[in-house]
Amino acid sequence: PVLHGYFRSSCSWRVRIFALKGIEYDQVPVNLIKDGGQQLTEQYKTLNPMQQVPAVEMDGITLSQSLAVIQYIDETRPGPRLLPADPKKRAQVRMISDLIASGIQPLQFQNLYVIQKIGADKVQWSQHFIDRGFQLEPILKQTAGKYCVGDEISMADICLVPQVYNAEFKVDVGQYPTIKRLNQTLLEIEAFKVSHPSSQPDTPADLRA
Amino acid sequence: PVLHGYFRSSCSWRVRIFALKGIEYDQVPVNLIKDGGQQLTEQYKTLNPMQQVPAVEMDGITLSQSLAVIQYIDETRPGPRLLPADPKKRAQVRMISDLIASGIQPLQFQNLYVIQKIGADKVQWSQHFIDRGFQLEPILKQTAGKYCVGDEISMADICLVPQVYNAEFKVDVGQYPTIKRLNQTLLEIEAFKVSHPSSQPDTPADLRA
Repeated sequence: PVLHGYFRSSCSWRVRIFALKGIEYDQVPVNLIKDGGQQLTEQYKTLNPMQQVPAVEMDGITLSQSLAVIQYIDETRPGPRLLPADPKKRAQVRMISDLIASGIQPLQFQNLYVIQKIGADKVQWSQHFIDRGFQLEPILKQTAGKYCVGDEISMADICLVPQVYNAEFKVDVGQYPTIKRLNQTLLEIEAFKVSHPSSQPDTPADLRA
Repeated sequence: PVLHGYFRSSCSWRVRIFALKGIEYDQVPVNLIKDGGQQLTEQYKTLNPMQQVPAVEMDGITLSQSLAVIQYIDETRPGPRLLPADPKKRAQVRMISDLIASGIQPLQFQNLYVIQKIGADKVQWSQHFIDRGFQLEPILKQTAGKYCVGDEISMADICLVPQVYNAEFKVDVGQYPTIKRLNQTLLEIEAFKVSHPSSQPDTPADLRA
């Protein structure tokens, strides 16, 4: 696989979790800020008409949404499963993942399209939505075991960690004890370390771990 | 199953597609505008801490994200499948569904949280994002047969129709011939008719078909 992504993009981080399955892949950095946004070039548009990261080329197709990529590798690659076998637990994993992917992430500070449109009050606006999003604390309190849903790592955990990383600069995560605990547990896992924004090929020297 | 939803909510419409599987269900209307928003009551918060529609109670669990619900019923109920058997096609269905669910829907005019925050320039802002979102035209041009992905109805179609319904008031859908054709084909199907916002228990008399 080839991942076209950006070190700071939380959706790119979700895909770098290829590491959990032991999948080797190449990275092609797409700098969302440099040159007015490298995702806006005609060349990149050919690859992904949505002009967003990530885009993944694998098995002869190009996929551009992180949850679709995660579920595709889960269905076609060996290694630890990223969705539980039980349908109810699978549904809860997808619910939590979607809550983060469509309920929080698109509305937060890091989202360049929103920033460009909003202009002023960026940080305040973003905090409002992140705080709101972390109303998923009571949901996780019900579903979590060692990880977000029960005792096995899943796609929900893969969504949670990058989200908390983005939130930490602006929100007191300590308000959300379940989220805080899950995040700490997950960050100890090697696959989350190697996929972390602080250690990617395109991470600037001053932000490296 | 019991669906807590709102006639105009595109995410609620996605869930009403229960009809495609022939699943009987009860509807409990949650009026997002009346009484300052019935989704904000303490009673509703107990059901869905995110205070959004839809929320579905079934099989002893409560699910609050439409794509999680659709995939859950697909995995646990008989009837026509809503995700294709082929993993690549499944991935494309999920990609298109996520593009709509997390790339377009959260940023558009109908989204109450965003409206409250944005205030001015609402329609213009929304059109920008819907137009942008309809860059999925070139993607659908590649994946579509009779329906969004090949010749079988899928979750992608279930996402497309409500999205076009929302867009039609503000964007010239005729600019997107594939989207326009798919939408017309899908609206002929009985399950899309019975789930349409114009014929729900909570549809006001003046908006009924």
